[in-house]
Amino acid sequence: MGYYVGLDLGGTNVKAGVVDDRAKVLGKVSKPTHAEGGPDAVVRVMAEAAHEAVAAAGVKMENVERIGIGSPGPIDFDAAVVRATPNMPGWRDVPLRDRITSLTGRPAILENDANAAALGELWAGAGRGLKVTELVMLTLGTGVGSGIIVGGKIIHGAFAMGGESGHMIVVPGGRLCGCGQHGCLEAYTSASATGRRAVEALQSGASSSLARDFANRLDTITAKDVFDAARSGDALANRIVDETATYLGIACVNLCRILDPQMIVFAGGMILAGDMLFDRVRSAFRANTWTVVESKVEIVPALLGNDAGFIGAAAVARNGHRNGQA
Amino acid sequence: MGYYVGLDLGGTNVKAGVVDDRAKVLGKVSKPTHAEGGPDAVVRVMAEAAHEAVAAAGVKMENVERIGIGSPGPIDFDAAVVRATPNMPGWRDVPLRDRITSLTGRPAILENDANAAALGELWAGAGRGLKVTELVMLTLGTGVGSGIIVGGKIIHGAFAMGGESGHMIVVPGGRLCGCGQHGCLEAYTSASATGRRAVEALQSGASSSLARDFANRLDTITAKDVFDAARSGDALANRIVDETATYLGIACVNLCRILDPQMIVFAGGMILAGDMLFDRVRSAFRANTWTVVESKVEIVPALLGNDAGFIGAAAVARNGHRNGQA
Repeated sequence: MGYYVGLDLGGTNVKAGVVDDRAKVLGKVSKPTHAEGGPDAVVRVMAEAAHEAVAAAGVKMENVERIGIGSPGPIDFDAAVVRATPNMPGWRDVPLRDRITSLTGRPAILENDANAAALGELWAGAGRGLKVTELVMLTLGTGVGSGIIVGGKIIHGAFAMGGESGHMIVVPGGRLCGCGQHGCLEAYTSASATGRRAVEALQSGASSSLARDFANRLDTITAKDVFDAARSGDALANRIVDETATYLGIACVNLCRILDPQMIVFAGGMILAGDMLFDRVRSAFRANTWTVVESKVEIVPALLGNDAGFIGAAAVARNGHRNGQA
Repeated sequence: MGYYVGLDLGGTNVKAGVVDDRAKVLGKVSKPTHAEGGPDAVVRVMAEAAHEAVAAAGVKMENVERIGIGSPGPIDFDAAVVRATPNMPGWRDVPLRDRITSLTGRPAILENDANAAALGELWAGAGRGLKVTELVMLTLGTGVGSGIIVGGKIIHGAFAMGGESGHMIVVPGGRLCGCGQHGCLEAYTSASATGRRAVEALQSGASSSLARDFANRLDTITAKDVFDAARSGDALANRIVDETATYLGIACVNLCRILDPQMIVFAGGMILAGDMLFDRVRSAFRANTWTVVESKVEIVPALLGNDAGFIGAAAVARNGHRNGQA
């Protein structure tokens, strides 16, 4: 039985977990990142978390086969260096893999966190036991994060920027995205964009129960508020939800034409809307997909929840060096 | 030195060529397919073409390492069976790989022709000598054919329908495509669609030199006519060419976000328009791509021309069993 440590580096917390070959979590720990201390301090927090998780699992560090690290920000995969992170000060070309190895004595693999999450869902979540090798994951949060697995391996691309499905353009000339493009999937279907689109409609004078419930504080409306109002029958909220679902359905069509995955997994807070989201995304997919052959892709929610980060990182560790780092 | 035979099955001609490890063509032959004779007769033509190409190359069939077969139509890659071909009568679940092997005595690999062409450009064409492992090819003809290479391997997808970038939706609710979807890349940017969009604009009364030059035979206008008129300064023709280039540029953006290839290769008759097409596609790409990092993808014409089919098939043979067929 092999043991793997997954390390999930977040701006607020570092999570670590020990996971066995059957994706069973044997021990886990969460510690404040204290990002303000800079990379050196954060790396020590990460190493401590790894040691504490191993202790909690009742195994020895020397029996850990590999450590997987899920990190935000662009990564130089060949050098195993975090080039930058958007939310943590001082992170510039940090050799995170080698730093963790030197503090734990175990070989490690560095991966982008969204990519790691996709591999985690394939192995231990939505794809568990199903022999899935082709999978796309979309995480609907502040943005639309994404990871893509082809042939059981994470897509990195030629310049380490692959798997960014959230920045697929679905509306040429459409809404401006934070990435500089117009009409990205993210600009329409992230949780933030879904709330924002409702706010804009209300500010333009659309009538809705939301206008009454959020009088004088329209800009606090979230995607959850929109889904709640839609569930109560509000017409504007239903139109906003339908638009989000339509663009997600079209994105699924495009991913199927290009990649033909077995499974498209949605994650992020917005999936708590459940059938109200998934029924409409699946319906939009069916309405927009081709008639050449029957579509067999499964469009499903992520299953790993709060442990997704470190389980994904452990999946990267278990996948070994199949994605290049020597 | 290894020798490979590439067999390119077309509705009109079967082409065969012997290619060595350095992508040098040692001998080639083209024979009428006589598709009306049905699969058995066509398979015999293919085997004859292979034998004749080997003779023309001055090598012995027993010294051929493998035969690669590029075939139209959906393929069952596990069984190495052509499930159907759109343009040839009687093709239904034809075990083409095993039939060719039994008539030549050499191991063979069956591949979709558009996928084989992409691998051929990577190895011997636009990607030659450049260590490209991530490449997308788009062929602008009657439709928009496509093949995708990730990590040096052809993307087949979970249900053998991957790599169909031509059916990426670029205009939600847009023009009806032959595949049943609305707004596909193919519905705007194939050579056929480019000519057709000009015809429709003229039928709606748009003024253009094309209206004069093709009076009473508007529906014979081809993409080449549109490019020629654009080059002569015709405003409508320039608008049509710009639209084609814009959607191709946006498709390139989407392919970069999802796959991050090193190279996007365009093929098909429309690339004879040269800079008039490529300058505008690259310009549309730059105008629509993100500002997160500098884009390094190369958008280039295919180089293999008339030999592309059998060289692509030979590339499949050379790639061996990396794509699965045992």
